[in-house]
Amino acid sequence: MQDALIRLTDYWAGRGCLVTQPMNTEVGAGTLNPATALRVLGPEPWRVAYVEPSVRPDDSRYGDNPNRLQTHTQFQVILKPEPGDAQELYLGSLRALGIDLDAHDVRFVEDNWASPALGAWGLGWEVWLDGLEITQFTYFQQSGGLTLDPVSVEITYGMERIIMALQGVSHFKDIAYAPGISYGEAFGQSEYEMSRYYLDDADIETNRQLFEAYATEARRMLDARLPVPAHSYVLKCSHAFNVLDSRGAIGTTERARAFARMRGLAHEVAELWVERRAELDHPLGDAAIKAPAASETSSALPEISGDGTFALEIGVEELPPHEVAPTAEHVARALVEGLEETGLHADESVVETYATPRRIIAVVTALHAREPDREQVVKGPRLSAAYDADGNPTKALQGFARGQGVAPSDVGTVTLGDVEYAGLVRTVTGRPAAQVLADLVPRLVKGLRADRNMRWNAPGLSFSRPIRWLVALLNEHVVPVTVAGMTTGRDTRVHRTADRPLVSVPHAAELISTLRANGIEPDIARRRSRIVEAAGPLARSVDGAIDLPAEHALVEEIVNLVEEPTAVLGSFDESYLTLPEEILTTVMKKHQRYLPVRSSTGRLLPYFVTVANGACDTEAVAAGNAAVLRARYEDAAFFFQHDLRSKPEQLKGGLEKLTFADRLGSMADRATRIRAIANELASRVDLSNEEFEVLRRAGKLAKFDLATSMVIELSSLAGTMAREYARRAGEDEAVAQALYEMELPRSAGDALPTGVAGSLLAVADRLDLLAGLFAVGSAPTGGSDPFGLRRAALALTAILRTNPRLAAVTVDEGLEIAAHNQLVEVTPEALAEANRFVARRLEQALIDEGHPVQVVRAVMPHAGSPAYAERAAGDLGKLLGDDRFQRLTTALQRVLRIVPEGTRPEYDPELFTEPAEQRLYDTFVRVRAELPRYATLPEFTAAALPLAEPIDTYFDDVMVMDKDPGVRANRLGFLADIRDLVTILDWPQIA
Amino acid sequence: MQDALIRLTDYWAGRGCLVTQPMNTEVGAGTLNPATALRVLGPEPWRVAYVEPSVRPDDSRYGDNPNRLQTHTQFQVILKPEPGDAQELYLGSLRALGIDLDAHDVRFVEDNWASPALGAWGLGWEVWLDGLEITQFTYFQQSGGLTLDPVSVEITYGMERIIMALQGVSHFKDIAYAPGISYGEAFGQSEYEMSRYYLDDADIETNRQLFEAYATEARRMLDARLPVPAHSYVLKCSHAFNVLDSRGAIGTTERARAFARMRGLAHEVAELWVERRAELDHPLGDAAIKAPAASETSSALPEISGDGTFALEIGVEELPPHEVAPTAEHVARALVEGLEETGLHADESVVETYATPRRIIAVVTALHAREPDREQVVKGPRLSAAYDADGNPTKALQGFARGQGVAPSDVGTVTLGDVEYAGLVRTVTGRPAAQVLADLVPRLVKGLRADRNMRWNAPGLSFSRPIRWLVALLNEHVVPVTVAGMTTGRDTRVHRTADRPLVSVPHAAELISTLRANGIEPDIARRRSRIVEAAGPLARSVDGAIDLPAEHALVEEIVNLVEEPTAVLGSFDESYLTLPEEILTTVMKKHQRYLPVRSSTGRLLPYFVTVANGACDTEAVAAGNAAVLRARYEDAAFFFQHDLRSKPEQLKGGLEKLTFADRLGSMADRATRIRAIANELASRVDLSNEEFEVLRRAGKLAKFDLATSMVIELSSLAGTMAREYARRAGEDEAVAQALYEMELPRSAGDALPTGVAGSLLAVADRLDLLAGLFAVGSAPTGGSDPFGLRRAALALTAILRTNPRLAAVTVDEGLEIAAHNQLVEVTPEALAEANRFVARRLEQALIDEGHPVQVVRAVMPHAGSPAYAERAAGDLGKLLGDDRFQRLTTALQRVLRIVPEGTRPEYDPELFTEPAEQRLYDTFVRVRAELPRYATLPEFTAAALPLAEPIDTYFDDVMVMDKDPGVRANRLGFLADIRDLVTILDWPQIA
Repeated sequence: MQDALIRLTDYWAGRGCLVTQPMNTEVGAGTLNPATALRVLGPEPWRVAYVEPSVRPDDSRYGDNPNRLQTHTQFQVILKPEPGDAQELYLGSLRALGIDLDAHDVRFVEDNWASPALGAWGLGWEVWLDGLEITQFTYFQQSGGLTLDPVSVEITYGMERIIMALQGVSHFKDIAYAPGISYGEAFGQSEYEMSRYYLDDADIETNRQLFEAYATEARRMLDARLPVPAHSYVLKCSHAFNVLDSRGAIGTTERARAFARMRGLAHEVAELWVERRAELDHPLGDAAIKAPAASETSSALPEISGDGTFALEIGVEELPPHEVAPTAEHVARALVEGLEETGLHADESVVETYATPRRIIAVVTALHAREPDREQVVKGPRLSAAYDADGNPTKALQGFARGQGVAPSDVGTVTLGDVEYAGLVRTVTGRPAAQVLADLVPRLVKGLRADRNMRWNAPGLSFSRPIRWLVALLNEHVVPVTVAGMTTGRDTRVHRTADRPLVSVPHAAELISTLRANGIEPDIARRRSRIVEAAGPLARSVDGAIDLPAEHALVEEIVNLVEEPTAVLGSFDESYLTLPEEILTTVMKKHQRYLPVRSSTGRLLPYFVTVANGACDTEAVAAGNAAVLRARYEDAAFFFQHDLRSKPEQLKGGLEKLTFADRLGSMADRATRIRAIANELASRVDLSNEEFEVLRRAGKLAKFDLATSMVIELSSLAGTMAREYARRAGEDEAVAQALYEMELPRSAGDALPTGVAGSLLAVADRLDLLAGLFAVGSAPTGGSDPFGLRRAALALTAILRTNPRLAAVTVDEGLEIAAHNQLVEVTPEALAEANRFVARRLEQALIDEGHPVQVVRAVMPHAGSPAYAERAAGDLGKLLGDDRFQRLTTALQRVLRIVPEGTRPEYDPELFTEPAEQRLYDTFVRVRAELPRYATLPEFTAAALPLAEPIDTYFDDVMVMDKDPGVRANRLGFLADIRDLVTILDWPQIA
Repeated sequence: MQDALIRLTDYWAGRGCLVTQPMNTEVGAGTLNPATALRVLGPEPWRVAYVEPSVRPDDSRYGDNPNRLQTHTQFQVILKPEPGDAQELYLGSLRALGIDLDAHDVRFVEDNWASPALGAWGLGWEVWLDGLEITQFTYFQQSGGLTLDPVSVEITYGMERIIMALQGVSHFKDIAYAPGISYGEAFGQSEYEMSRYYLDDADIETNRQLFEAYATEARRMLDARLPVPAHSYVLKCSHAFNVLDSRGAIGTTERARAFARMRGLAHEVAELWVERRAELDHPLGDAAIKAPAASETSSALPEISGDGTFALEIGVEELPPHEVAPTAEHVARALVEGLEETGLHADESVVETYATPRRIIAVVTALHAREPDREQVVKGPRLSAAYDADGNPTKALQGFARGQGVAPSDVGTVTLGDVEYAGLVRTVTGRPAAQVLADLVPRLVKGLRADRNMRWNAPGLSFSRPIRWLVALLNEHVVPVTVAGMTTGRDTRVHRTADRPLVSVPHAAELISTLRANGIEPDIARRRSRIVEAAGPLARSVDGAIDLPAEHALVEEIVNLVEEPTAVLGSFDESYLTLPEEILTTVMKKHQRYLPVRSSTGRLLPYFVTVANGACDTEAVAAGNAAVLRARYEDAAFFFQHDLRSKPEQLKGGLEKLTFADRLGSMADRATRIRAIANELASRVDLSNEEFEVLRRAGKLAKFDLATSMVIELSSLAGTMAREYARRAGEDEAVAQALYEMELPRSAGDALPTGVAGSLLAVADRLDLLAGLFAVGSAPTGGSDPFGLRRAALALTAILRTNPRLAAVTVDEGLEIAAHNQLVEVTPEALAEANRFVARRLEQALIDEGHPVQVVRAVMPHAGSPAYAERAAGDLGKLLGDDRFQRLTTALQRVLRIVPEGTRPEYDPELFTEPAEQRLYDTFVRVRAELPRYATLPEFTAAALPLAEPIDTYFDDVMVMDKDPGVRANRLGFLADIRDLVTILDWPQIA
């Protein structure tokens, strides 16, 4: 292992990195070392590499766990500014470590890094070596709450993992650290003793004092304008906090307060550092990203004759899988729209799109060689002002002619609208295709956006990941243009490990075939087929199958994780099959993106299919992935056994230590509220004694599994583990099921709770979330929804829409109940906002499900009862085709249009003077009497139809806006009464 | 610089070292990292190399000082057990750094390392590169208070210094740290800010709390039997202490208490670590030094005919210079004594001795080829028991004969004393020379001892530095013997950088010539001549000269620092000549062993002569040494200017912070006592008003310079700087001189104070030292005299002997006065012990000065007045040749012999019966009346001479021991009165 550290040091030193030493106080990660934390700030360039023994008290395992150490060894590299080829440099470092990149499967898998405690985030990847995460690779965007300019690349190698994989050992202690001495021999005792300290023996009171002393000293150093010692004390602070945490000594309030304090200090340190460096006039220089360069088009644009094919490839670093297809669609759409604005696009033009994680491609065929010429009218002065009384050109006309470069006598007359002007009609020559495309490409590239965007060393661009090359070919010609420093060309990039990673494309029509010839399948559908076609036989070779429908989402993800799918079959030890299946599949699918293999009866088999990128040594890749799985299952088994030692009620005690959110208390507080809200809601629902008993018990245990090791480790197993542990603890099956169902739906498309107890708890859960977070001002803003409130609102309405037992539960009342259970005051405004928020989610959901927009909007008065709203929407959709309903609608619109907002339904029928008036009044009274109390829309329609004709007559005969204010007011008051009878719909929406 | 670290790492990793990371908490040195501090303990082998950024708050200089940093970079190597060739390995590492060992002067200069705070010490060297200390090289003997077995080698490189020398820059900030970035650019801000923290801004109260918290946590971890976290907290403790210290916040009591606490903790950590490793059964194995192997002699011993020459070379690693000559003398003496016990030694045999730092040589010529044969008497049973009545052999005789392997009839008769025995006379054949020598050599090698001895990986040996090879030749033959694993041979080692470092010696008589042929001058006198002969012309080349008499001690040291002296002339900037000369020469001589160059008028010139070892590039060596001197002078100038900013009285305030000794308070306390003691003593001395004023003022400022930066840095300038600063502060010249003189004599042979004020303060200083340290039980024991009490006692008596103004000051009274000024109680026993201690020093001094032993002993009753004792010794020496004095002596001895100890001088002259009795009494009364009060010995003799004849007559005529007890008692009482009159000498000593 020390050899590996020396090699990495050599490698990066050879690439201009300063080699520094680890921080001389305990840090949790190399990022915290000032050589990263401070140096990424400000404009100065910086390249550094260092080893960082990273101390994570929470990971203490007495040296027993094969993969976890309280001190693990990071190798950290910072490249500032990001050099444009950091991935390639990184792969070079793996080669330097002796890793055969042709044999192994190295992949960049989306992983965005954020440390709210440090006010830091970045976008990037985990790097996988045969499924093992060996490196964190991040484009650092913000640190200490400050936006970074220039952007740094941070590369963090997890050395123990890499070495375990390279040496093929399954316990860190077995690593050969140096010739003749193992990791365990060198560091085993320290690992044990420091674990003892962190888990058992550290004195809590002393560490509290230390935390306080460090924070105070950091504060003092900030006041003295010394960011370096201040930073050091922030680190000490953080370590003391981690020690307290691993000793289980951090309560909710303390955690929140400590985090806020550390975050504040870190932010001030960052600001002060930036200030001080500016005062020192940036001794290392200035590498900030300069203002966006204008896009340049080379003057020598190619000309084509005949039809043209245009191929555009936007080369990127690995996109997150879910961005691949949408980005391709966006590019195609933008291209088509762009072309359609021009005359280049022909009826027979076809746009084909392709996409992989590393490239977005659009190929357009049958383009015109140039735009057709067209006439352009140029308007001069009004004719009346163009010539004087003698018919001579006025100064205005002369000026116009001069401006147009013609003689005044050449100016004619043009008519626009009804007015005549002096003017010209000019013929504008159509631009050649290359010119049009050269104008279009920069706009298109600059317009690329994703859900989360980053900046890199390309002024003016912002996208999910860096754009690294552009191929733009019109037939055999390059369409030459420079965007943010990148110039288009004909060289595409194929696999990074290829002998020739750059390949020249001769003709636009050959881009796709060129890529295929180099092992890249640019077509998403074809990659999907290849995976499916390869995985099936592999599964069958062990008498199994892949449940493709069940794994649909996973396959879609895998498809966009690779450019050349290579399915590989791996296996794991059968003994792990004794673990709950959800654990096994969660690890496989969510963490490793493996396809599980099942028997014909659906039983899980000890195999998996992983999909590598490109050609590889499948045996090595299978073995590597199997080792990863074994390590993960080993961990899971450890957690599972550990959790089983306690009863659910004991486990629930652990919720006290889990913070929920600022001012909203701990998870224990939240669980208590959920239980109370569910109980209140239950009074609106007709429960059997048995059901009530289930609700009572499940409420008492609600969310206990959040405190289990397993769920802390694999949070997606919340609910699943509650059910599992409850069953094993001998709880009633209905209780176990309710504990499971209260977490449903966990994502869009997930199952909904079916039992009434589970449904009530699930609803209470979301109501608590919404009421609480709106109360403390944490409503989602823009793209940010850290607490998943959108999902919560959707889940809430989905449950209420589908479970008829909950028909009497309304959103507004539910929020009301949730509100008065909060620890904080929920203002009426906040409550109203929460209600509107839920309504908008419902509205969107109904629209997404195919209801016409105006229909959905019309039923929104019922948003509080999502089930009713849904039914009304369906009904309304049908009624809209009904003439009688249309007539009613038209009539009612006349009423609604004339009544000013705020008019109260106050009138005296005695004052009616016109017969039509009286007739409408009589009909109205009758209809009102006959209308059912909770009418469905068809019921309402049936009852209200008789109003249509009298209303029409009324408006024909009666002058509502009478000159006599008394009469007028009386008539409007009456119409307001009709208005108030028909609130079942928002009628103007269907006008 | 980073390249250098990488190269060192590579080099040592390639030599079996584990490469680890720096400690993740602040440490003052690489030694404190557990990879050293703990791993050197116990029997397990360990090889490790690591970088250690070492934090020394005290060295904070805001990055301004060219050579001092609060964080400097150590590269640390531990080789356990010491491999036997660590010096050679180390030199290899310098080559790996690109240092041309042929061009530069690399030397191992004695430097013993001890950290009382850690209970750690070792013997070894500073390694000098052209005079620059670049590495500390230590054979670790003890750590945490535990003796180390096996012994480790610790090599600590000071990286900044090495790189500054290699890159030829004069400020650490200018080091090229990595391509394109300087040390200052990389670490300058941190250096400034951390200096600010350590010197100005660290909160004292907070750091006190931290110290306390860390110590408590360390204690707790010890109780939990976790040495690793305990050690970590001891380090934190130590750093907190250092921070407090650099903030000037450590008072006397606090310092002593903190040190005791840390030492105690460190010791317990060490013990616990050893225990825990034993419990773990020493996972890395056992490399403890095994029991001494018996010395082996090869059976094939050479035989010579004719005379023999024996050459013995004991090869060592660089001895401290002062050990070289004494060791050679010891070897020669032991060899001669050993040979004289045998018959090998001839009258014409000559022993020649040679010695360098790396070898001790003795060559003996004209040895006999073998011992002469000799007769041996073997005694059997007494003759009376050997034969029965019939004359037949008894069983006793038969047994004896059997034991001797002869027939009973062969047994004869031998006479021993007056008794006859049965017995034999056998002829013992003399051993061949080789046999004798083979027996002698191991005893001789094993018997080598120095003032301070170490152990290394050689069982049974203990010496100043490791012994590495043995050449033992008898004429052309090897005398083969194995001692502690080393076997004698004919290969000697020459310069380590030589092409062939091993050279074979063909014949004992050719050892010296072989060495000379290889550039080694083994003769001390010849080396001395070479230095003197080379330095003179070099000095003359710049119109200067070396004051050889003044530099005698330095030349003697240099002579034994090199094996092949190469004098090199260097220079320094004239501007430094504005510094006080003593500073300049102290740095040159004491720190750098340079010979200063003076003009004909004795003025210092800006040149120096240094003596390199062996051939080198003199220009490079001169430049390197000049750079070292510049750096040191730069520092000195900084301190000097800094000190000058404060007045002596302000500076004296700093003494509060300097601990003197446990229970004896601070240096300020000590200075106060010295002043008080001097004032009391002054009442015994006749002072003028002026003198009294000088004493008063000097007493007030006494020792203020100990708190100056300059003296803290160069402690040998104490007194010198006091005078300098006092003068510059406008103090009276007499006061300045008294402050200087009170520190005299600073070493054996140094000048004594001449002024009365300085003398009184000097005497008071030593009296305080003696009284205080004897009171707290810190009297010197064996070789250990950490407070220099022997020197103090000598200084005390020397001053009292030489300054007639202080004649009335006695040691006993002085100690009495010093005692009642102590903070602690001084028991009568302690005081008596101190008195005896001073008396013994005086006794030794007088003997060393040539007074006969019995004379000195005889005058010891006057030890309290050293001046008197000295004079008496001189007088007595002369009187001993005087017949009359001899007669008086003889007579008095008769008196003294007969009077039993304790007899009181009580008698009644009325009871005298004999005339002789009466006559003696009359004479006695007359003599007593005539004896001057403070008689010198001649005066006493003159007055007492009349007693001789009456005493002789008395003893002839009077029976003192009369049968009548009354008469007897009366006579003895009278003689006791005579005894009490003649206490001027201890007469029995000259009997």
